[in-house]
Amino acid sequence: MSFFTKLSRSTLQFHNPPSVFSFAAVAGPKEGQGPLAKCFDRVESDAYFGQKTWEKAESALFKEAVVTALDKGGIKSNDVDVLISGDLLNQCTATGYAARDLAIPYLGLYGACSTMAESLFCASMLVSGGLNCAVAATCSHFCSAEKQYRFPLEYGGQRPPTSQWTVTGAGAVVLGKGGSPFVTRVTCGKIIDPGITDANNMGAAMAPAFCDTVKRHLKAVGAKPGDYDMIFSGDLGKLGKKIAVDLLKEDGIDISENYEDCGCMIYDLNKQDVHSGGSGCGCSASVLTSYILPQMRTLKLNRVLFAATGALLSPLTTQQGESIPSIAHAIEFSTSI
Amino acid sequence: MSFFTKLSRSTLQFHNPPSVFSFAAVAGPKEGQGPLAKCFDRVESDAYFGQKTWEKAESALFKEAVVTALDKGGIKSNDVDVLISGDLLNQCTATGYAARDLAIPYLGLYGACSTMAESLFCASMLVSGGLNCAVAATCSHFCSAEKQYRFPLEYGGQRPPTSQWTVTGAGAVVLGKGGSPFVTRVTCGKIIDPGITDANNMGAAMAPAFCDTVKRHLKAVGAKPGDYDMIFSGDLGKLGKKIAVDLLKEDGIDISENYEDCGCMIYDLNKQDVHSGGSGCGCSASVLTSYILPQMRTLKLNRVLFAATGALLSPLTTQQGESIPSIAHAIEFSTSI
Repeated sequence: MSFFTKLSRSTLQFHNPPSVFSFAAVAGPKEGQGPLAKCFDRVESDAYFGQKTWEKAESALFKEAVVTALDKGGIKSNDVDVLISGDLLNQCTATGYAARDLAIPYLGLYGACSTMAESLFCASMLVSGGLNCAVAATCSHFCSAEKQYRFPLEYGGQRPPTSQWTVTGAGAVVLGKGGSPFVTRVTCGKIIDPGITDANNMGAAMAPAFCDTVKRHLKAVGAKPGDYDMIFSGDLGKLGKKIAVDLLKEDGIDISENYEDCGCMIYDLNKQDVHSGGSGCGCSASVLTSYILPQMRTLKLNRVLFAATGALLSPLTTQQGESIPSIAHAIEFSTSI
Repeated sequence: MSFFTKLSRSTLQFHNPPSVFSFAAVAGPKEGQGPLAKCFDRVESDAYFGQKTWEKAESALFKEAVVTALDKGGIKSNDVDVLISGDLLNQCTATGYAARDLAIPYLGLYGACSTMAESLFCASMLVSGGLNCAVAATCSHFCSAEKQYRFPLEYGGQRPPTSQWTVTGAGAVVLGKGGSPFVTRVTCGKIIDPGITDANNMGAAMAPAFCDTVKRHLKAVGAKPGDYDMIFSGDLGKLGKKIAVDLLKEDGIDISENYEDCGCMIYDLNKQDVHSGGSGCGCSASVLTSYILPQMRTLKLNRVLFAATGALLSPLTTQQGESIPSIAHAIEFSTSI
């Protein structure tokens, strides 16, 4: 009576894989100067997106991504059964206020930078189970994130080399029946905490969660890294990416040949001043919808494992000396079923 | 091929309704002096729950509720497929840090005070679809909420009569196969914003969302209020409860005979100094698990509509003059299927 086969405790294989009906990526000015500049559906030169505050800008950015994805698919918002999303702002107000304007039934998530994978996990469950159409989406904004998590921009705070740059960007994926690729399998993440307390070193904190999820997914599916055209992490950055490769190698799993990190792809790490790379919910979301899914549509990639990573800390838990619990959910996309 | 019948855009009726396998409620000192004092599984006299900070206390409270629910059901945490939860703290750290210690695959939600219904919505979808066991849970803590949303306790800020008192409490529900009652139907909420900007008047802000969800649920199901033994809102408080009854009456729906609000049930509004009543994710969660579900287990209630309400604002959106978007998800419980 189930609509999926349970390959392990938290890896599910869908009997009727939902498909990516349409998708869109919207990015800010700095992302528009990076390697993926030409891949985004829209690059906005004004980081305020025509709004008066950074928070309203982030909300506008998110709405733009959802509306563009719906437009590209020729779908009316009334035809969407549910919008599943979240963001980094306190109380997830960027997506909440946009959901108000979109008037679509709404499930709010909080998974930090893992949110794109978490929303795809939930949306693919619902569509595979019988809904017609669900939108999975998320966003982040450099300026609202800096203000909330670190310092006001005007302060000009210094950043250590391990720090990452929150992406101003949003990505939206419409899951339904029809279109490509398919979401064939998903693995729900478990929180892993390697004990790191430096909030400027998220890559190191999140890498073990990525490795845990990838290992569990591969084992449940019975696959090797080479069975995938590409494996993508969300936003481990330059440092976290190296740690992930090394950690998996210790377990006899070599992903070095076909692995990339969205945080390393969205900026030119040699020329753009972003230290260890991109981060934020919008990082993996906008790379997925500007690069990965288009590559699958043109069959340049046919089987992909997408594992967005999230650090579930807050400024207050850091102040209280807590370490950084991290999580990664894995979504397996395939152009054929 | 679907595991549910879609009664409307967002009301689903399960073919194999998941059941409430076990549940638990844990509460703080003030709640332990209220009308439900004897109903909680545990009342803690120390609001710090043995921890050093209010935030760690909230996390401990949440963990206690989940562990107690698992213990009561004789379930090991390894047997739980997924924990679905969220809380009011920035970045949902109360539940995130507890999920780290529980080592259960985790989906984090943010639905403000609607979280208990949202987590039940997601958990019932997953269990009805084929998972063995999912835990839906949430919590709130008066002291961490006051500190984050309003003033430090030491400041002794005054509160207007429309304000509500954040419940120190947590509730956890284990959904699986076996046990009672069943989750038979669910309705996903839509954001409704009546334009209220006073963050001390959440009841008025949330009442229209509750009414919208109840109306849509009743219409989709083809039911009248009298078909339910009781209809419960999450935390509209004294004022919001009255508004909800009046608003639905305008639409020809009379719920006055069999309707109660969890925020009005958890405290003695005449004797305890809580102004308009209880609020917070833990309010509806602890009333559900201390009163509603036990009443269903003993067949004093047989068909219940539980619609937790959430106000999706943040202190910053209030400062920026925004109104309060609200949401309510409805869960229909039944002792027979």
